[in-house]
Formats: sequence, C-alpha cells, structure tokens
Amino acid sequence: MENQGKNNNPAVTVSRMVEDIVGCKWSLSVIKAVRNKLVRPGEIQRSIDGISTKVLNERFNKMLRYGILDKTIFPEVPPRVEYHLTEFGEKFIVIIDNIDALQGEVKTRKKQ
Amino acid sequence: MENQGKNNNPAVTVSRMVEDIVGCKWSLSVIKAVRNKLVRPGEIQRSIDGISTKVLNERFNKMLRYGILDKTIFPEVPPRVEYHLTEFGEKFIVIIDNIDALQGEVKTRKKQ
Repeated sequence: MENQGKNNNPAVTVSRMVEDIVGCKWSLSVIKAVRNKLVRPGEIQRSIDGISTKVLNERFNKMLRYGILDKTIFPEVPPRVEYHLTEFGEKFIVIIDNIDALQGEVKTRKKQ
Repeated sequence: MENQGKNNNPAVTVSRMVEDIVGCKWSLSVIKAVRNKLVRPGEIQRSIDGISTKVLNERFNKMLRYGILDKTIFPEVPPRVEYHLTEFGEKFIVIIDNIDALQGEVKTRKKQ
C-alpha cells in the first residue's frame, strides 16, 4: 500500500494556503466532501456539481502538495484510491471554518 | 468621546486580511502589544523595538479599516487616545494564533 502526500513539507506558508483554498470554490467543495467521509475520487466527483475530472485532479494534487490530504493506493485490481484529511488538514480546516464564520459576520454587519 | 473603527464593514475579505497581517511583522507586533493590554500609542510604540511613528500610524489605520482595532479619543486636554481590540479583532487573532501554531508545526516537520 502506497501512501502519498503525508509530511511533504510545503514551502508555501500556511497563510498563503489559507488564502488559496478560501478563494477556490472547487477546493472548498473537495474538502467538504472529504470531511463528509467521501474518500474515493469517483464518489467525490459525483458529489460536486459540475466539477470535471481534470479540475478535481488538479485540486487533489494541490492539496497533496500542501499536506492537507493524503492519497492511499490499495494494490487491488483495479487499484483502489482513497483520499483522507491528514492531521495537518484537520487543523487546517478549523482555520478555514473560523474564517468562514468571521466572513459571515462581516457580511451580516454590512446588511445592517 | 469619539469612537472610530468599529463596525467599518471592510470590503477586504477576512482571508486577505489574514494574509496581510500574518505577512507584516509590524502589524503582528502591534496586535501583540494591544493584547498585552497596552492601549496608548506612546506605550505601544515604546514596546516595539525600532517602529517609527509613521509606520505605527499606518498599521493603526489599517487595523481600524479592517475593524480589528477601535480607536477612542477622550475629550481631555491634551486628548487621550486609546486603541483596543474589537470583538471582531478578538476572533481574528484566534485565527492568527492557529495559523502561527500550524506554521510552527510545518517548520518542525521540515527540520526532522
């Protein structure tokens, strides 16, 4: 069993990752799917309306690079692939959630 | 008593603010001083080694604009000025702290 993406020491700073992920609706959708316990590329793709395989794979690769997700390839025929949040990824999404909540407050303020 | 900077509805998104503040050592120093209960411009400036009045005022103005700090001017002679974290600012620095902690982990990982 091959495991990719763990502990990949991103040169990108965490705040840059945050900016990047928060600004990308596809990345946010992929993270949401994975935290909802979808693990296989096909089921993740079916859960996100309108995402192409190319865009999905780009987002997977970015989040492997960032160390947010890891990828496990099971030596079956055909090979089974699963994506999971890393320990880093679990902490990372707490930050994303907090930013999201605060952004919601700013918007509510604006409407008042 | 005039109070500036509260509820100023920043157009800047929260994630952009995060990126900006995390990337600016002076902003981080000012936030650190204010959370350490320093409130007056003079005492904040003396607590930060090497910061000029011009740079300090720029950072104050940025954080007023972002809604992180508020500024209170007391009608005394001479007028007394105080800066405090807003409610938004209190939540904002939790995000900064979390990013900082996670960045620390990334660095530790790199050294291993």
